[in-house]
This record gives sequence, C-alpha cells and structure tokens, in this order.
Amino acid sequence: MKESQVDVLVIGAGPAGLMCTFGLARAGVKVRVVDERPDKVAAGQADGIQPRTIEVFQSYGLADRLIREGNQMHVAAFYNPTPDGSGIELTDRVPDVTAPTARYPFEVTLHQGAIEAIFLDSMKEMGVEVNRPVRPTSIAISEDKSDHDGHPVRVVLHRLDGTGNEEEDSEVVYAKYVVGADGAHSWVRKSFGIAMEGEQTDYVWGVVDMIPDTDFPDIRNKTALHSNNGSCMIIPREGDKVRLYIQVEGKAAIDAKSGRIEKGRLGPNELLDVARKSFYPYTFKTPQSFDWWTIYIIGQRVASSYSVQDRVFIAGDACHTHSPKAGQGMNASMNDSYNLVWKLAHVLRGWASPDLLKTYEFERRKYAQDLINFDKNFAKLFSGKPRTELNQDGVSHEEFIRAFQTFGGFTSGIGVHYEPSIIANPKHQNLASGLVIGERVPPQHLIRAADGRPFEIQDLLPSDTRFKLLVFTGNTSEPSQLAQLQSLAQELQSPDSFLTKFSPGGKIETLFDIVSISSAKKESVVYNALPPLFRSHWSKAFLDDTNYTGQIGGKTYSTYGIGTSGAMVVVRPDGYVGMVTPLNGVADLSQYFTSFLRVPSN
Amino acid sequence: MKESQVDVLVIGAGPAGLMCTFGLARAGVKVRVVDERPDKVAAGQADGIQPRTIEVFQSYGLADRLIREGNQMHVAAFYNPTPDGSGIELTDRVPDVTAPTARYPFEVTLHQGAIEAIFLDSMKEMGVEVNRPVRPTSIAISEDKSDHDGHPVRVVLHRLDGTGNEEEDSEVVYAKYVVGADGAHSWVRKSFGIAMEGEQTDYVWGVVDMIPDTDFPDIRNKTALHSNNGSCMIIPREGDKVRLYIQVEGKAAIDAKSGRIEKGRLGPNELLDVARKSFYPYTFKTPQSFDWWTIYIIGQRVASSYSVQDRVFIAGDACHTHSPKAGQGMNASMNDSYNLVWKLAHVLRGWASPDLLKTYEFERRKYAQDLINFDKNFAKLFSGKPRTELNQDGVSHEEFIRAFQTFGGFTSGIGVHYEPSIIANPKHQNLASGLVIGERVPPQHLIRAADGRPFEIQDLLPSDTRFKLLVFTGNTSEPSQLAQLQSLAQELQSPDSFLTKFSPGGKIETLFDIVSISSAKKESVVYNALPPLFRSHWSKAFLDDTNYTGQIGGKTYSTYGIGTSGAMVVVRPDGYVGMVTPLNGVADLSQYFTSFLRVPSN
Repeated sequence: MKESQVDVLVIGAGPAGLMCTFGLARAGVKVRVVDERPDKVAAGQADGIQPRTIEVFQSYGLADRLIREGNQMHVAAFYNPTPDGSGIELTDRVPDVTAPTARYPFEVTLHQGAIEAIFLDSMKEMGVEVNRPVRPTSIAISEDKSDHDGHPVRVVLHRLDGTGNEEEDSEVVYAKYVVGADGAHSWVRKSFGIAMEGEQTDYVWGVVDMIPDTDFPDIRNKTALHSNNGSCMIIPREGDKVRLYIQVEGKAAIDAKSGRIEKGRLGPNELLDVARKSFYPYTFKTPQSFDWWTIYIIGQRVASSYSVQDRVFIAGDACHTHSPKAGQGMNASMNDSYNLVWKLAHVLRGWASPDLLKTYEFERRKYAQDLINFDKNFAKLFSGKPRTELNQDGVSHEEFIRAFQTFGGFTSGIGVHYEPSIIANPKHQNLASGLVIGERVPPQHLIRAADGRPFEIQDLLPSDTRFKLLVFTGNTSEPSQLAQLQSLAQELQSPDSFLTKFSPGGKIETLFDIVSISSAKKESVVYNALPPLFRSHWSKAFLDDTNYTGQIGGKTYSTYGIGTSGAMVVVRPDGYVGMVTPLNGVADLSQYFTSFLRVPSN
Repeated sequence: MKESQVDVLVIGAGPAGLMCTFGLARAGVKVRVVDERPDKVAAGQADGIQPRTIEVFQSYGLADRLIREGNQMHVAAFYNPTPDGSGIELTDRVPDVTAPTARYPFEVTLHQGAIEAIFLDSMKEMGVEVNRPVRPTSIAISEDKSDHDGHPVRVVLHRLDGTGNEEEDSEVVYAKYVVGADGAHSWVRKSFGIAMEGEQTDYVWGVVDMIPDTDFPDIRNKTALHSNNGSCMIIPREGDKVRLYIQVEGKAAIDAKSGRIEKGRLGPNELLDVARKSFYPYTFKTPQSFDWWTIYIIGQRVASSYSVQDRVFIAGDACHTHSPKAGQGMNASMNDSYNLVWKLAHVLRGWASPDLLKTYEFERRKYAQDLINFDKNFAKLFSGKPRTELNQDGVSHEEFIRAFQTFGGFTSGIGVHYEPSIIANPKHQNLASGLVIGERVPPQHLIRAADGRPFEIQDLLPSDTRFKLLVFTGNTSEPSQLAQLQSLAQELQSPDSFLTKFSPGGKIETLFDIVSISSAKKESVVYNALPPLFRSHWSKAFLDDTNYTGQIGGKTYSTYGIGTSGAMVVVRPDGYVGMVTPLNGVADLSQYFTSFLRVPSN
C-alpha cells in the first residue's frame, strides 16, 4: 500500500478547506487537500462575503479579484404590507452594513465556485491542487506522537472511480495534523464521535437562483420582505443574477413520516409561485431557466469540541450549522480556518508551543455559539408574520430593523471579539481604548514619512504569519521623545530581549515586522532621525498626519485612543490586537510572547 | 517581394507607438507596429506618469497595474542655500500635484520598459506583437486614394540582421494610414520634409539612475534643489531606485567644435561628484552600480505639421522635444496617440468623415506649443542660480514655487484644454459651468440608482470609442420632470433622430452609451420609472446623492454647475467634453454629430 507523509492533511475542499490549504501553502507549510466530489462547485450554495471576510481576503492580496468578480450589496431595503393589506410597499432603505468601522461598507455576493476559484488559482501558483475524487475511510491518532517521524495521524484514502465507488488501491497518509473541513455531515467529526449540540427548527425555506424579469424596484438590493402571504429575501448576485429566499409551509415540503425535506414535492417553479404571492403587486415573469435551487430546514447546532488531542481539528460547517439568510455560513467557515492557519504554521516551524493550538477552539467555538444565539433571534423575526392592524402579535418593522442594525457588528464580522487568552492580553487596554484587544485592527489612514504616500493601516498588516509590532512613537520631532526611543531600541535589541531570543536565526524580520507611527508633522519630519530599528527600511516609518491633499489621515492616535506618550501594539498574524504596552513596557511584551513562543532551535 | 495590406501601420514602438497600437487594437482595428530596435527598453529613459495619463490608463483598465508596479510621488520638496551659504536646507514641502481635480493626486514613476510592458502584454492578449528589428526605407502616398483597395500609403520595410544591417529581402506594406511614432529623429518626419521649429538651449543636464545610500531626508520625494554649486532634481522610482537630474557646465560635456554632447567626457561617477557638491552637507556613497545614465542638452522644438494629407501622422517625440524634468515628454507622446486613436477608428469604420482627422493636429500641436512655452519658463528658472544675499539677481524660492504651482494644471496634464472645433462646441457652456468644453470630465462620485453602489463618473467613461451621452435628468421623483423625459426619449428615438440615423445597424449602443444621472434621493427613488432609453440596463441609471455611508457623492450637479432643469452632456470617446445642451436641445446635439459623423452604410 502506498504510504506518504505530510505536515497537514486537509479533508474537504469547500470554503473552509480551501482557506486552510491556501493559508498553509502561503505560509510555506507542506499541505495536502483531498475532496470526495469529482468537480468543484459550479453554481448555487453559499455566496455572501462579509466586510470582515473581505478584509481577510485583502490581507492575502485577494480582495481585488473578489470585488471585481462579485456584486456589491450596499443597501438593505424593507418591504411590508400596504395599509389595506392588499400587497406590499417599500418601508425603508438603509445601509446594508451598519458596522461603522468596516473598511468595505458592503457585502460581496458571488457564487461559491467563483470564490473557491480564487483560492484554487492561488494554490495552483504555489503548486498545490485538490486531490479528487478521494474519500478517507479511516483515521486514527497514534498514542506515541513521535511515531512515523512525528506524523502521528494515520489516514487511509481511497480514490473514487467515475461512479463514486472506491477503487481497490488505497493509500495511507501520515500527517502531523489533520483538518476536517468536510461539511455539515463531517466524516472526520463522526469518526471521533464529536456530538453536535442544538436543534432543528420548524422553519423551511426554498432558494432559487435566476436572472429575474420583474418590475420590482429593489431587485438589486438586499431586500427583506414581510407580507401577509409569507416572507422573502432578495440577494442580488454577480451579473444580472438574483437569489430569492422564499419561506414555505413546512408540510408542503416535508415528508410527514421521516421529517425530512422531500425535494420532489416542490420545484423552483412552485417556489417562484409562492414568492409571487408575497411580492404582489410586483410581478416576476417565469425565467428561461433556474441556475440553482434548493429547500432546507433551519438547524442551529455547534460541535461539542473542535479538536481531538490538538492533532485533528474540525472547521467550518463541520462545527456549526445555522440559517444561511444572514450570510454567515461561509464566512464563519473561512474565518475558522484563518484563525487556525497561523497557529499551525508557528507550531510546525517549532517557533510556538503546541498550547497555541488550544486557542483555536477557545476563540472559534465561542464565536459559533454567539452566532447561533444571534441566528435564533434573527430567524424567528424573519420567519414570523408581519405586524398589521389585524395581527398585532406579528413582527413590527421597527422590531425587525432594530435587530438588523443591533446585530450589524455581528453580521458584518467586524465585531468578532476574542476573549482573553495567552494571545489576547487586555492588561494595558486603557492605553489604546480604540484598539480593542481581541478585535481586529480597525482601518485608519497613515502617511509614509519618507514620501508622504497615504496607506491604509490594514495594508501594513498582511497575513504573512508575522507578528506586527506597531510602535506609536509620539512626536519624534521632539528631542526628548527621540531620546526615549533610542533607549527603547537599545532595550529591544539587547541579547536577552524577546525580539532577539525568539527571532529564528537572529533575524528579527522573520517573525516580527516593526512599523513605527510618529505624531510628527509631515512638513518638518526628518524620518531618518529615528533609530534604525524603527525604520529598518525607509518604507517602515509612518506619520499620523493628513495626506498632502488634506483629505485623509491624521486621526489614528485619536481614534485609537493613544496619547502623546505613545504605545506599543502587538498585532497577531491574523490582524487581531494581541496586547498593548507603554513605550517602557518591554517586560510586558516579553511576558506576552514568552507565554506561547519557543526559542527556535536554529 | 512580399506584399501585404493593413489598416494602420505604426512605425516605432516607444510610448507613443505602443499607446497607438494598443488603442487601435482595442478598437478592433487591423494594426501592425514595427521598430528598429532589436529589444524593448530595459532601463532608464522617461519614467514619470502624470495624473491625467493615469486617468487615461484607468479608462483602458490599465491603471491598477501601473500603480501597483510604480512608485507614487506625492510630495515636492524644495532645498535652497543655508543663510551662511555653506550648504543647503529644506525650504518647503508641498503637494507634488497641485491640480485640485486630479483623480490621482500623485505622479507614478516607473521605468519606461515597465510602462511599455503594460501595453505589450495587453497587445499580446489581442494577438498583436511588435515586429522587430525592422527598418522602413521608403514611404509614399499614392495620389489616387483608392489605390490598392483603398490602402494608399506604400511603405517598404527591411528586417535587420543581428548587426543592425538590412537583410536583403524587403517587404512592401500598403496601409490606409501610417503613424510615425519614431522619436526625436523621426524618419517619417524627415521623409516628408516636415521641419522642426524652435531652438536648442545652453542648458546641459546629466541623469543617473541608482539605488542611493544617503542621509538626505527627502530622497523619496521629488526634490528641486538650488545650491550655490548648481541645481539638482530627485525623482524617486519604483523599489529603492532614484533618479538624479544634475546640472552640468555645458563646456564640460560639449565638444566645442561640433556643439554636440560628448558622452565620453563625463561618466556617472563624475556626475555624482557634481551632485555631491550641490547636496552638501548631505552625502551620497558611491553605489555599486548605476542602472542607467545620460547627458542631454535641452532643446525646445515643435514640428511644423503633424500630418501629410491626413494619411500619414506623426506623434510623440517626432512632433516635439523639450526638457524631461517636468515629466512631460512621455505623457505628451502617449496623449498624442490617445487623441488620434479614436478618430482613426471612427473614420476607418466609415462612421465619421475624414475631416475628423484634422482635429488631431489642431488639438495636439497647440498643446505642444503651450508645453514648450511652459518648458522655456520652467527650465530657465530651474537652471538658474538661486537668489542669495550676494546674488540678488538669482531665482528666489518664492518665484520658483509660484511657477511650480501656477503650472500645476499643465504639468499634471489635467488642465489640457482643446479649442473649439467640430468636436468641441462651446455653445451651451453656461448650462454646465464646471464641465469645461474641451477639457476632460473631472472626477465626481455618483451612486447607482438600482443598488446604491458608489461609482467614480470617470469609470463610466471607458475608452471604448463610444460617445457617452450623460443625461442629467433633474429630479425624476417629480412627475413633471418624468414627463419631460418621456418626450425627450421619444424625440431621441424618432426615425430621423441622430441616435437612430448614425447608429450602425440601428443599434444605439454600438456608437452611443447613454447614462442617466438623476437628482432624486436614494431612499425613495424608483429607478425603473425612468423611460427605458435612459436605463437600457439597470446599471445605466445613477443618482447624484451621497452613498449609504454618507461619505462620498451628492455633489455632481453643483460641482458641474448643472441646474435643476438638467442638461445633456456629450463626452467624446477620449473623455473630453464635446458639447452641452438643455434637455430640449436635441437639435443642437443633432447638429454637433452631423458635423463629423456619417450615416453608416450597413
């Protein structure tokens, strides 16, 4: 039997598996990904990318293509019954994204296959492709972690033939780590007997994708429609395509005996007929064809555990299921992987303690639970009848829009907050009240000291697995401040400093990227007066000042709540704030990094 | 002898020739380009792209790459003698681009070869490559323009062998049109005896390209330095490269007998030594190597004519030479071609009268003359001694910076103004005081009516050779305004309307792109209440309103000086305003288009 070794084996090439494989490959990790499906997704499935996920794409240099290929959803429109109850009318149009710090104040909609193609193409450039159709048939973790040269997870793989049957030849892969990103019915999860906690609702929805021919004026906006004949949601898509979510009577689609969806009972034409009743007086002509359609029951469940011995992890739909209408599923899935990737990379390189891996479940399972609590609320409001004169118990527009906006931070992904842990230390939170420890660094414009070019601070935080040390230097045109920075540079470069100790091969820039941000003014600053540590290249020194047109910049210290005496900010490789210290806080920084980094052997 | 036919033969594959070939190929014209040089430019030469030229690149979808690969120059710094005259000091830092409407408020610097590669790669995708090394040896225009199936220009080409000698086999190309973009010593220009008018100056400058090792704090800014030991200019480049322009004593470099530059007399090390004296007390270490260097005398000349019988045209350096320091040369050259391309395309398709071609010389020769007048002024100020206590006749900083800022519209390319002609009719200028007829449409943000997505109006004006008809509809939420638009649509679609008459095959969108811009409010607008002509697709209807974050948009009518009753604006295929009329001005529009369009034969 063929045997091989790999650092990480990823099972499943959906959004979670591809984000994981892509991220690991980008980090230089030896990774392999297998998938049971013979081809990639062609249509349908998930399709909404949240503002925070766009930021993540941008941190990998992938946002341009995503935005170019996708549709932008800027507006949420709300329709409710007319006073006489005969039809619906426009009640409100509001921003789709209500998180005030979103760098991208819109959602991108694009079919799942096109999103996956962004990863697949980047992976291909790095020489990594999906092995398919390949089915895993057994998985086990050796008790001796040094087995097989430190590859303790044994997975048996079978290639499938054209009819989906396992071919006779099988292959054994020994992996250091396995990531199960194999969907809601995860084989990896079931293999280890991890339970899904939660329940199924009574809400049944149909979905149709099509190019509509309609007189409905908000067909290109995200539209939430409550009518006396049921609820609908519009998600406009790339090109002229549109997705309709249509509430259906459970009994029309569910087999009474088994309790399961019977797709044969309702087709896309029947679903569109249901929608037509809700949309009256607006009309939809029958399209030439439907791109995709489905029916589903909303279930809200979270896996009881996200890992097995910190050697096998599950991510994405394998960990959590919920309603698709708030556009959370694919985003949560990709962000699971994004959270895991840098941690795996650091542990694999021997630069971090395996304890770092425990923060994956800690951070992402809590998020999934929050997501499901949110989803229960939202699904109930959305599937409920509208409040009218006759039905005073219904959901009022005010109630619905309040929920929509309250949960804006959540649905945008911007408000994700990781609780204190070894990698999120809130000790000096007061030194930068606007940089919330455990949250992502919010956007701000800086200008580069040497050439006055404006930069978005998020673009200084690429997903390159390095820790970013943002040194808010105070006003470096003041000699006293410069003198303090000289001592700080000396302390940071001393032989027993964490910077020296943990830097592989003694090269600081391998693990740490130091960026300085001065509050000096652009007209007079002498950028090369800074100690060389804080301008290792001329491109590493920035100013919190307006750009030369005066239109952007100059608000970073004030927005982040950083005072004139400055601060140091650790940004994790995933863009989340890890710690803040004063400029004389090298000891605190040292403690932070010592809690999970290891002195590298090389 | 091999014979062939082509619609347009371009001679010379520098910036002017490549912009021409690329633009024609993009327009679907059968075009061929030849160049005498065996390879494309690898380093040095021109390297600065002005704000207006970036807009032109953007109109072709090429700006992203240009900006990604290039360096951005945002700041102009000025150094002058210290009060004691011992060295230099910083006098001022100001925005490099002073044109207030520049969409890109910076210049991009990138070596000429990289800029050319942007065109070469795009051309390759369209199946067009440069034939090189190929030398033209004879050119003649047949008196009978119907000769050779309407290809009256006969050019003999010789392929060159490895040593630059003409191979024996030659080829005859019959072209409908020839564009000579063959540089300052243009063979095409000389073949037809076109004179260069103007003169050579006494100013001699050296240029060195290198990665500097210096303590000079403005090495990444455009720096103009006046010292008692001569003048210098810094142009930072892509990566860590920098270009220095260094004033040299004429007699040090010029052969007294011939009056020509003798490159052997001064090398890059000698040039850097000259610069070191100007830069004192700042220092430059000797670099490991110089990327490129040259010495030149500033000459300021314009060709007496830009065309021969409107069949052979010259463009770029073949038409005008001037000093390179204001970064004009390559920009002027590419914009010559940009001006010519759409006119050639329309005449070749039979959609426009050949008279349209006369506007090329009319518009671009005047521009070149303005450029040279500017250049004379600027070169004199720049090459002059600085004003000091001892030299009160010298150039003061105030005088220099005033010239720098006064000419900002000019050096940025933004202020280029084409005089009235058949394609620039100022009749109704008062209806849109902020849209200057003969100038490019200045940037403004709109939002799309159907989905609230913000757009830069320049992105609605791609270089697709179509005329854009911007219909500023007024407030379409008002029934009376809608009624007027209904009549307007009817008039525009009547059988004898210019839209119907000039549209090839009766398809309006082949030649005209109609975009509507309403002053209605986003919260209540019903975009599909507009007559279908003004929303031929849902993506064609826009609003002059703020976007949903409230940060941009809503100032288009006011900035353009358009009143509540609206206006129609013709934008030429090159993005310049051609005419403005009231909403009841179809007759004026008709007159405008009838003056140069032809009823297509198909």
